[in-house]
Amino acid sequence: MKQLYIIGSGPGSPAHLTPAARAAIDASHELVGHGLFLNLLGDLTHGKGCHKPPMGEEITRARLALDLAASGRTTSLISSGDAGIYAMATVVFELLERQPKPDWDAVDIQVIPGISAMQAAAARVGAPLAHDFCAISLSDLLTPWETIERRVVAAAQGDFIVAFYNAVSRKRSWQLQRAVDILLQHRPPTTPTVVAFNISRKGEQISVTELQALVPDKLNMLTLVLVGNSDTRRVGNWVYTPRGYGQKPEMRETVTPSDE
Amino acid sequence: MKQLYIIGSGPGSPAHLTPAARAAIDASHELVGHGLFLNLLGDLTHGKGCHKPPMGEEITRARLALDLAASGRTTSLISSGDAGIYAMATVVFELLERQPKPDWDAVDIQVIPGISAMQAAAARVGAPLAHDFCAISLSDLLTPWETIERRVVAAAQGDFIVAFYNAVSRKRSWQLQRAVDILLQHRPPTTPTVVAFNISRKGEQISVTELQALVPDKLNMLTLVLVGNSDTRRVGNWVYTPRGYGQKPEMRETVTPSDE
Repeated sequence: MKQLYIIGSGPGSPAHLTPAARAAIDASHELVGHGLFLNLLGDLTHGKGCHKPPMGEEITRARLALDLAASGRTTSLISSGDAGIYAMATVVFELLERQPKPDWDAVDIQVIPGISAMQAAAARVGAPLAHDFCAISLSDLLTPWETIERRVVAAAQGDFIVAFYNAVSRKRSWQLQRAVDILLQHRPPTTPTVVAFNISRKGEQISVTELQALVPDKLNMLTLVLVGNSDTRRVGNWVYTPRGYGQKPEMRETVTPSDE
Repeated sequence: MKQLYIIGSGPGSPAHLTPAARAAIDASHELVGHGLFLNLLGDLTHGKGCHKPPMGEEITRARLALDLAASGRTTSLISSGDAGIYAMATVVFELLERQPKPDWDAVDIQVIPGISAMQAAAARVGAPLAHDFCAISLSDLLTPWETIERRVVAAAQGDFIVAFYNAVSRKRSWQLQRAVDILLQHRPPTTPTVVAFNISRKGEQISVTELQALVPDKLNMLTLVLVGNSDTRRVGNWVYTPRGYGQKPEMRETVTPSDE
């Protein structure tokens, strides 16, 4: 059988690479992905063909992976995080629809999910994503800014916790500032905001600030920004969003020694 | 060191249980979680104390886990999916804030993320979550329906892909119908909609329908519903949301044999 695996390798550490993803990589002859993410796999890549078209070459990467698989080489197309969240899986399906090739029909495709950056960041600081949340990419390379801004406004009006992917890049930081300004119209300036970089990888940095104190200029392309909703709170060093358990009598009562 | 792990065990199959979560379970003397989820762990639970307060007893479960860890027994508090997404992590932090106990201060807490149901479902059908999305719980046990409905309206206005958690229960199905009606005011009736049950577990069922054809009455508490945005499409048996690569010349050109 001709096989293409589309894999999410998680935030970086092998501790978050699922057994399903690892088994698919083990079974592959060829690996296709951005060099940064293939390098994170370390020994797992040994003895395999490694193909690393640069960032921006997503279509080349997807086509190459389909072609390699169609040639009979079991192939893994690798994204960091989750392959289905701002990553490579959609590019493969769009190619299959727009530029079908008869060779590709014989390829069996399997998508394997992974831990996305927002999950890894959330776990490090507590449970900020514990109520309704959304993910928004601030990259306007492929999506018109009007569409993105409309989503930020909707997220603000709906009081969603927001995970910003592609929050800033070398060429742009005004989008994040604009998004923050929109959110500030609907939630407190002190809203806990998590700034996460390289989670579970070398050079990991994570900090918690207030929405009003976020400085977009200091961030980069690999930074994930998580903004709490109007209920998100801090307890000690942790950040969490309550779900409403505080209304329950067991949570309201003060526990005194005589209760126990 | 006194240790509490708060673990997301993923959608069910051991293939999606991360090495970090497995290592934490291995290192634990005591496991606390809903029986359904502990049972899915199979052999991993052997030789450990298993504590299974029933569904609805989330506060009891969190308090028990903190107390066990504080007594010196390394403890894992286990949710399916991601511990930080509609799961147990937030309950622990809310207890720490509302009912602090001096014993608990000595407990080191680590949250370990897991693959959430929306990710497992999305991977099975393709890449429906590939553009901006949100997660909304339709359970109004702890959140007023007005808040939930406001979020559904915002998701509709922002054209977010929507993952509905707790979409229906034995006692309620009108909420999902109401949410569908709201979405139908803003996106096509043919919008691809994924209905997923027990993904990666025994009895897995997944189907793709149109938004207008969704029948809430047939679903249950363990069903996840994923509604595409206005761009979400089908190609063959796959469902995907394009990200805009179709604007790129490499994706627009028709590839003819002479191009190759």
